[in-house]
Amino acid sequence: MKKLKRSSRLVEMTQYLLARPHTLISLTAFAERYQSAKSSISEDLAIIKEVFEEEGIGQLHTLAGAAGGVKFKPMMPVATSLAIINEVCQTLQQPDRVLPGGYLYMTDMLGQPKLLADIGKMFATAFAESQIDIIMTVETKGIPLAYATAACMNIPVVIVRRDNKVTEGSAVSINYVSGSTKRIQTMSLARRALKERSRVLIIDDFMKAGGTIQGMMDLLHEFNATVAGVGVLVESGEVENEERLLTDYVSLANLIAVDMKTKQMEVVPGNYFAMPTN
Amino acid sequence: MKKLKRSSRLVEMTQYLLARPHTLISLTAFAERYQSAKSSISEDLAIIKEVFEEEGIGQLHTLAGAAGGVKFKPMMPVATSLAIINEVCQTLQQPDRVLPGGYLYMTDMLGQPKLLADIGKMFATAFAESQIDIIMTVETKGIPLAYATAACMNIPVVIVRRDNKVTEGSAVSINYVSGSTKRIQTMSLARRALKERSRVLIIDDFMKAGGTIQGMMDLLHEFNATVAGVGVLVESGEVENEERLLTDYVSLANLIAVDMKTKQMEVVPGNYFAMPTN
Repeated sequence: MKKLKRSSRLVEMTQYLLARPHTLISLTAFAERYQSAKSSISEDLAIIKEVFEEEGIGQLHTLAGAAGGVKFKPMMPVATSLAIINEVCQTLQQPDRVLPGGYLYMTDMLGQPKLLADIGKMFATAFAESQIDIIMTVETKGIPLAYATAACMNIPVVIVRRDNKVTEGSAVSINYVSGSTKRIQTMSLARRALKERSRVLIIDDFMKAGGTIQGMMDLLHEFNATVAGVGVLVESGEVENEERLLTDYVSLANLIAVDMKTKQMEVVPGNYFAMPTN
Repeated sequence: MKKLKRSSRLVEMTQYLLARPHTLISLTAFAERYQSAKSSISEDLAIIKEVFEEEGIGQLHTLAGAAGGVKFKPMMPVATSLAIINEVCQTLQQPDRVLPGGYLYMTDMLGQPKLLADIGKMFATAFAESQIDIIMTVETKGIPLAYATAACMNIPVVIVRRDNKVTEGSAVSINYVSGSTKRIQTMSLARRALKERSRVLIIDDFMKAGGTIQGMMDLLHEFNATVAGVGVLVESGEVENEERLLTDYVSLANLIAVDMKTKQMEVVPGNYFAMPTN
């Protein structure tokens, strides 16, 4: 790269950091990239850090010492996320979204790249301090959420298939009971898709009793992997407590009431916003 | 937003533009956001434009006049994309990736957020000048590619399902013949998922004879929508020309030969890199 002026270097460093979240970049690497003294690089990073933190873009962590450097963590301030989620709740309450069985039509929302990026950033914020190797979801509607989160956290995604016709070599299949409908279903994952002892963040779009997520946890057990966290976009709070298979999870929205006759729904922010740390 | 110093404003404007691709932002909006004169904003944009274009981040289009402003288009220079695709081809040629039927195991690669972002940017570059309203893909492996492209182009995604058990209200189903296996299969799309007369970019991970993509095109016909482009990550060049159902598409890589006995494969850059405009 040719040597840049200060102002151009700030632009370039900003884009470079934004494109590499959760990646440690050494001061030496920056100094070489921009043919500049480490002291100038440090001053630039201080400016970027201040803007990123003041404007709610994320944190810039500086690690001192020989192995030191800087790491950008996308983080969304709780006020920003709450404003976005309140809007999501409003949209979800539109009466024509009620589907048979008390499900919600939200496929259109899960197709919007800007909203997905925001939701991914919320999950990345919720799990920023967890040690996570990989994100897992089950096809189909959880996939965009999993990838949006992975992009912010810079970790890979693995997709569990709902059939066992996978053309991906040998696979592990399990049966699980969908908690609310009590139907037995199958999910499977290719043997080579997940390393043993991985720490896994499970992301899904909707959780009623939690049977699907419990199924993913059972599947992880087959791979000697562990659950490092569970995040869902919408939980259905209509489930009786004793029916909930899972208690430790983060939800961004909560569908607390559905009246199938009037097609009236009540959707409120999820448990993420009720946590004491927020 | 509080008034920022020049250097901080450059950082903020850079992240603001990067987060809003293919979105027209007026100079007035910027001037108000930063409480600065339009002349200062214009100077800042000139610096950002130069860095974005020199470093292969994308183009900054300036539109003059009352409705004017600036629009960031992520674009990847062909040399950068070719270097990435050459690496992809190398990885795809690993012998343990050959699956029965001449398919390629590439699920692990489709789980890497950085690679996906790069591929999305390549498709966004290939179709930057096309008028596109929405991106369509069919579950499951095309989904991350479709979203990565959508994020760069700032347009929504719609996912075609392989079954008709969708819990998404009334749906249109079609049968199609998978070109290489000659099996009849079903795909379906919820009625409300796609507006009539939409201009659609079809994205998928793998194309042999093109039956699946032809199926999506038939489905579009049911919605009075039109195909604005077709992009695939890997095409299988092994198909005889007369068997190919589709001729107008962009491929990033081409699996030109598979020897099932030795598990040797040859993967080369796709037709995107053979186009005269590149």
